[in-house]
Amino acid sequence: MAKVRVAINGYGNIGKRVADAVAKQDDMILSGVTKATPDYRALEAIKRNFSLYSIGDAKEFTEKGIEAQGNVNDLLAISDIVIDCSPGNMGKSNVALYKKFPHLKIIYQGGEDASIAPVSFNAQTNFEKAIDQKSVRVVSCNTTALCRVLGTLDEYFAVKKARAALVRRATDPNNHKKGIINAWAPVPQFPSHHAHDVNSVMPELKITSLAGLAPTTLMHGHMLFIECEKPIKDLSHVFSALNSNRRVMFLSTKQGLESTAQLKDLAYEHQRPRGDLYEVCIWKDGMGLDSDGELGIHLAIDQQAVVVPENIDAIRAMCNLASKDESMKLTDDSLEMGELGIESIKVSKTVEN
Amino acid sequence: MAKVRVAINGYGNIGKRVADAVAKQDDMILSGVTKATPDYRALEAIKRNFSLYSIGDAKEFTEKGIEAQGNVNDLLAISDIVIDCSPGNMGKSNVALYKKFPHLKIIYQGGEDASIAPVSFNAQTNFEKAIDQKSVRVVSCNTTALCRVLGTLDEYFAVKKARAALVRRATDPNNHKKGIINAWAPVPQFPSHHAHDVNSVMPELKITSLAGLAPTTLMHGHMLFIECEKPIKDLSHVFSALNSNRRVMFLSTKQGLESTAQLKDLAYEHQRPRGDLYEVCIWKDGMGLDSDGELGIHLAIDQQAVVVPENIDAIRAMCNLASKDESMKLTDDSLEMGELGIESIKVSKTVEN
Repeated sequence: MAKVRVAINGYGNIGKRVADAVAKQDDMILSGVTKATPDYRALEAIKRNFSLYSIGDAKEFTEKGIEAQGNVNDLLAISDIVIDCSPGNMGKSNVALYKKFPHLKIIYQGGEDASIAPVSFNAQTNFEKAIDQKSVRVVSCNTTALCRVLGTLDEYFAVKKARAALVRRATDPNNHKKGIINAWAPVPQFPSHHAHDVNSVMPELKITSLAGLAPTTLMHGHMLFIECEKPIKDLSHVFSALNSNRRVMFLSTKQGLESTAQLKDLAYEHQRPRGDLYEVCIWKDGMGLDSDGELGIHLAIDQQAVVVPENIDAIRAMCNLASKDESMKLTDDSLEMGELGIESIKVSKTVEN
Repeated sequence: MAKVRVAINGYGNIGKRVADAVAKQDDMILSGVTKATPDYRALEAIKRNFSLYSIGDAKEFTEKGIEAQGNVNDLLAISDIVIDCSPGNMGKSNVALYKKFPHLKIIYQGGEDASIAPVSFNAQTNFEKAIDQKSVRVVSCNTTALCRVLGTLDEYFAVKKARAALVRRATDPNNHKKGIINAWAPVPQFPSHHAHDVNSVMPELKITSLAGLAPTTLMHGHMLFIECEKPIKDLSHVFSALNSNRRVMFLSTKQGLESTAQLKDLAYEHQRPRGDLYEVCIWKDGMGLDSDGELGIHLAIDQQAVVVPENIDAIRAMCNLASKDESMKLTDDSLEMGELGIESIKVSKTVEN
């Protein structure tokens, strides 16, 4: 089978990560990446031997001594599928451009409105819906995390209603200009859009949400209250259920992982590229049942990494390259997922979970 | 009636605020305040004409040119009641000291374990329980806020179950050493102690909670999901109910109050002493009902100020100086509470709430 030629339109925080992941897949070829500005990130793309294309005029790149192979039109003409990694809500301005290439399949990111594509995608939850689709939207990092965790819990315990309180990071680590700083800024809306977005993937799941912005760049934090139809007799059943999901990993403050700062440190120490955590992180000792048997969980989500595997699986579904299970295994193996969880970093019997 | 002589043991972030508030009451006299170290805060107490007492040796103060009237024993001997404003969980080490003064009544703060006193106190919710008590614990800022809001909602709509997600401030604004910085640190416990603490005041209220620390010094943020027994037909009923509580105030992002940063700015502009917000702040536009009629609310809580009125009311209850309603009105008037809400700062008909 011919390899699928994948273009990344927008070599930013998501684009560069998805590009690396595409390059690791045996059934895909990275046809090229685009950039709007010829800056250090463009040089990094070239260093990786990625074919670089300009979004605007290629001359601007040449003037700075950075060789672009052409512009975005040239790249799209030689690609089977494009992953739109524009900044949030900017993908819609590319819809007209993509229409000029009738053969092209398109993946949008979760920053776009759900209406941009017929399917909002999460690999574990609705892979099948994306099969042979022309365009798909991979939902945001927060929604991806909620789908993974609630999807698994729903399967095992039948979620009655989930309430999600989201502590969103202010901006990404490579942005020094945007805040917030030293404050808490609630999103003035109930339910916040996150509940609706989960329903764009799992329409039957009962969920409500509140969100706000905190002055951190590292990861998002979620506090979840989850009522289930099936009684949870023992917390170990929840652990087993969620631990069976390779895109979720358990960690503990008793291992010194007291905050998102240590989670990222662990990822760097483990030589994860860019310190990326593709897995949703769950504090095992932050999980519990209240007197009603309702489940409480603390999550942390690496906003730049968590959607990377979903983009890869979306390509496979849309191009009908593999079944859901095959695709997820290929993706997870290529990213070495599941090696950082509580079992893996336990160094001796004396470390308590 | 003779005025009640009130001692403040520990002139720190809470102590200095309660001292000012005591000094404003016609039925109380501030007999003095204690400090462990002769620093700038001690000088500020003297500038206010407060009688200063040392916690340790008074000589240390004299050597620094700061005149102490004596030590804590001298102050307790001439006081009717002491408000223990030690750092969190340090009040218990003063229990033996207070026992040496059989006439003395004692108020502890919420940083102590609930077992330190027979009553955990919130003025609006259980004033009567503190009447004539020898010792009382005024619950923490977070618990005080939850009691005010949930107490009012319970009265009007009968709370079925409340779920509180707390975004706690890392430390106080005058502390430059303690973190956290640039991370999210969940409290690894479900339910967090906050739910239990609310039940120390309102044993019948069904509540569960999760909490974490965010890198901000200004205020705590709460995200609340509240199920009520009585159907809420219109959000305006919730607004009316909560707005009838002078210790709660409504604000809106549409007034430019988008985060805790602007809330504090408003308090400073309004010349509130130390920029204090004694009221629990609620974002009116952050309040809503989901498709089940469940209520969602964003709160912000000034951790240094919100318990000040409760300490004053606790004195009145314990010394039987006034009824609940009389006491709360005297306290609220003296602190000019209720002047900062959405109605008060509306400058023209064109400002949307």
